[in-house]
Amino acid sequence: MSLTPAQLHTVQTLRQRAPLVHNLTSATVANFTANALLALGASPAMVESPDEIPGFVALADALSVNLGSLTPVRIAAIELAVQAARHSGTPWVLDPVGAGGIAGRTRFAQAMAQRGPAAIRGNASEILGMMGDGGGGRGVDSGALSEAALDAAGRLARQSGAIVAVTGAVDYVTDGVQVDAIPLGHPMMTRVTGMGCAASAIVAACLAVQPDRMQAVVHALTLTGLAGARAAAVSAGPGSLAVAYLDALAAL
Amino acid sequence: MSLTPAQLHTVQTLRQRAPLVHNLTSATVANFTANALLALGASPAMVESPDEIPGFVALADALSVNLGSLTPVRIAAIELAVQAARHSGTPWVLDPVGAGGIAGRTRFAQAMAQRGPAAIRGNASEILGMMGDGGGGRGVDSGALSEAALDAAGRLARQSGAIVAVTGAVDYVTDGVQVDAIPLGHPMMTRVTGMGCAASAIVAACLAVQPDRMQAVVHALTLTGLAGARAAAVSAGPGSLAVAYLDALAAL
Amino acid sequence: MSLTPAQLHTVQTLRQRAPLVHNLTSATVANFTANALLALGASPAMVESPDEIPGFVALADALSVNLGSLTPVRIAAIELAVQAARHSGTPWVLDPVGAGGIAGRTRFAQAMAQRGPAAIRGNASEILGMMGDGGGGRGVDSGALSEAALDAAGRLARQSGAIVAVTGAVDYVTDGVQVDAIPLGHPMMTRVTGMGCAASAIVAACLAVQPDRMQAVVHALTLTGLAGARAAAVSAGPGSLAVAYLDALAAL
Repeated sequence: MSLTPAQLHTVQTLRQRAPLVHNLTSATVANFTANALLALGASPAMVESPDEIPGFVALADALSVNLGSLTPVRIAAIELAVQAARHSGTPWVLDPVGAGGIAGRTRFAQAMAQRGPAAIRGNASEILGMMGDGGGGRGVDSGALSEAALDAAGRLARQSGAIVAVTGAVDYVTDGVQVDAIPLGHPMMTRVTGMGCAASAIVAACLAVQPDRMQAVVHALTLTGLAGARAAAVSAGPGSLAVAYLDALAAL
Repeated sequence: MSLTPAQLHTVQTLRQRAPLVHNLTSATVANFTANALLALGASPAMVESPDEIPGFVALADALSVNLGSLTPVRIAAIELAVQAARHSGTPWVLDPVGAGGIAGRTRFAQAMAQRGPAAIRGNASEILGMMGDGGGGRGVDSGALSEAALDAAGRLARQSGAIVAVTGAVDYVTDGVQVDAIPLGHPMMTRVTGMGCAASAIVAACLAVQPDRMQAVVHALTLTGLAGARAAAVSAGPGSLAVAYLDALAAL
Repeated sequence: MSLTPAQLHTVQTLRQRAPLVHNLTSATVANFTANALLALGASPAMVESPDEIPGFVALADALSVNLGSLTPVRIAAIELAVQAARHSGTPWVLDPVGAGGIAGRTRFAQAMAQRGPAAIRGNASEILGMMGDGGGGRGVDSGALSEAALDAAGRLARQSGAIVAVTGAVDYVTDGVQVDAIPLGHPMMTRVTGMGCAASAIVAACLAVQPDRMQAVVHALTLTGLAGARAAAVSAGPGSLAVAYLDALAAL
């Protein structure tokens, strides 16, 4: 499989413009997220200070909000960043890590979904959890196939106005009416922490350069899926996969 | 060297059950720790928020408490998590990073050792430091051979009721009476940050699936030692080693 | 290109003494920074707690202060650490990440420059930004060639008393009078997060073993440049580069 002309155009535009993608994310995945954005050609930033966030979001081309290892300090930072993004019209992505598994996390993810994200990306448990459908997720690993969350994803898209993506062996992207499927997931990708988080940041990067939001999310997940599949094909295990994935993003 | 049938059984059980291992650890090693757990087949979580910890520990199969880059915020999180683990009977591991090198850190590690950890894993300086034997550690790197801390490890095991492991060129595991030795350490492993921290998390994962605590710790350190030795044999340096280590954990 | 006898002497001394380098840095780059120091032969520490910093800095051989993802908590930690370093005469390095891009960050970097750092290392945008020359940096990525900041670097060196390094395709090092150029930068190095941050930590490590500060900074950037160039020559992309860079630092 290779990129369509439209997908190639998104990659090329992204490399020309090097959009500044501001990330509010966990310490666990911050390095991998920054490296994935850099490998693809975007410019990552991880500004965390309440003093700096409002001004910085106005400067950024997109914002990625990740709920992994959420703390009260990061909740406050997210509130500030989302308010600033709404004010400046900066597209932002919600990654509801752990929704469905922890009650308070679920409620915060639900509240954030009503604040106008351009896109929401999660695994099946998280998307089911956000719609109260009890996905049974215990943490960041999904206990369910992405198909199982397709109905919940459609409802979430209609409620929130966001493009919703459920990632797994097959990634599904929906605006609440149409559904696109990207069948590029590889089991070895589930054994590397932060693959989903990096994908959300890449969704944000694509939203910065592709005004059609549905296309932006589909292109982003095609890029990450293709890089993951190419990396898995040459990797001996999850350690090699993470390295080859960054190389593959740069080589797209 | 290869795995014994009992060790293989631990690995297989771990992969079937994918125990949820909750980690309270430093930003420096969080990514590598999560990736090591995923590579082996466990399910990592790094929940940090005081609001989420008590509920999450009750859900987790094991807890790993790491004192690296300790902050007042993490001390409070650890107190909550250990209290919850004691209440739910969840096995937990103490990794006393920096004990013996920093006075306050040593005292906190000593206090935690009295709170019922299933196991304690440290290098020689840290185990000596916890027993007031002055290991001379300046940070996380051990200035002493693991043999030198064998007596301190035995006393610590008898005082705390924990299985105590001192890792180094030879890893020693003791319950205060018996001692097992695992001679798999490789010098190159000391040049990758977080190898010991990841080993502690893997001890926690094995405690979740192997009820005999002495066996659980010995199996965990055999798995990490074997993966490290296999990785070192094919690595050009510490960068490659960290990658190959994750591949080797997945291939065990 | 290979190392001069003086540069080789710095590496050998560093490996013999394994200087303890204390880092106050962001979660994004903490792991890579620690691994770069370990690969070269230094001993990293990332002590963050206000209770532990003063005592620990007195124990350390050098301190690296990095403003990436600056938070109020880290500002307080940096203030404590710099005060302790001045008291004990411990050499410290300032890495003004994001200066020129964020007003408050610029002011803090300028204030820190007046507190007696042994060296300051930044990219062109950051060094221009510190001197109010408007480098146009939006984040950590430099929008300018290192040459463009040469005049600003000289002024900053004379004002602060620090050795100032501007890194890029060519790294420049100046004490405000003399300038040394190290033409080893590779474009692929700009696609790995934390390469500059790790270089600053390695500058700190070299300052711990080489009393001539100008030589220490030039040696550090020659080591990192050479490792980067050798790594780039054998790497398929930025993922491989980060791994090969650590291997190359260990093989110097």
